[in-house]
Amino acid sequence: MDDLLDKLKEIDGITNKIGEKFLINLIENLDKFNLLNEILQELKENYKNCEICNFYKMNNTCVFCDNNKRDQNLVCVLTSKREARKLLNSEYRGIVHILRGEINLNKNISPDTIQIDKLFARINKDTEVLLATNLTFNGEVTANYIISVIKDKCKKITRLARGIPFGGSLDYIDEETLINAIENRKIIKK
Amino acid sequence: MDDLLDKLKEIDGITNKIGEKFLINLIENLDKFNLLNEILQELKENYKNCEICNFYKMNNTCVFCDNNKRDQNLVCVLTSKREARKLLNSEYRGIVHILRGEINLNKNISPDTIQIDKLFARINKDTEVLLATNLTFNGEVTANYIISVIKDKCKKITRLARGIPFGGSLDYIDEETLINAIENRKIIKK
Repeated sequence: MDDLLDKLKEIDGITNKIGEKFLINLIENLDKFNLLNEILQELKENYKNCEICNFYKMNNTCVFCDNNKRDQNLVCVLTSKREARKLLNSEYRGIVHILRGEINLNKNISPDTIQIDKLFARINKDTEVLLATNLTFNGEVTANYIISVIKDKCKKITRLARGIPFGGSLDYIDEETLINAIENRKIIKK
Repeated sequence: MDDLLDKLKEIDGITNKIGEKFLINLIENLDKFNLLNEILQELKENYKNCEICNFYKMNNTCVFCDNNKRDQNLVCVLTSKREARKLLNSEYRGIVHILRGEINLNKNISPDTIQIDKLFARINKDTEVLLATNLTFNGEVTANYIISVIKDKCKKITRLARGIPFGGSLDYIDEETLINAIENRKIIKK
């Protein structure tokens, strides 16, 4: 079983303890194999990565990019899809750009590694770029790098308002705080 | 995605956060679908529940029941497979019996619901039953129920020693445990 566990741990979110519970639950309940196969089939058939914003498309539709009711000139830059999901049911009316990571010089994660070029390609003189990277060292490095490249290429650059404690990871922030921080976003360049 | 998450959460160990990470990781890395399918296939083909002790059989062999080098007269009673796995690489030389739960009168989990009858069926006058249920209220209720039924049917009934866990700080140890640990103190030098 340790071999299976080691493989399973290659999937995000699965630790040793969670993996053990997961595998044992399947051994003890054969019907959950079917459940899991259903989930995987639906996920594989209907969900794709959105090539524009890096969020996911469901049935070939991105709820951000393919939604005309959203302000396509307000782009919130986030590090992960999970954070973008927090905006889905909120009052935020703009679109998103998922970097899928942050610059981390210690781990050799450079601007090329994460999806920053895709961001530069989609902004223009009408775009407000709202930087919602983590307020951690690496999040700030990432934000500052983006600012340095886009400062003359967009209409406005904003940053999440403090209210998120310094050192705080967006992962642990509740939706309301996130929305408040968006509403009170600070203008870095006008 | 919320629907898929709700389904996935029916599998033990998967919370909202873990499920989100899991699903998103699959959307972003198609090769992990294959990995997961491999895992599921191997699990389904090679792992079964052991009908005797409720641990799992790998390739139709239970490492406890089908191992003659283990003392088949020393049966450690545990609540879950995960706990039994902790014994696998230890010095423990007996076998196990997994209850798959504990008696919990608040949740209507009675002796019939968990796998206690199977335990009664396999003990005899040569058996030592080592009760390793949790040292919680429900664990104690379970242990006491088992004791009441088997007390004249086996050779010996034992219980895990109470004491301070490895690395445990006395600061966080309740008084009862401390008193137990003092009563069961081990002689280092006489």
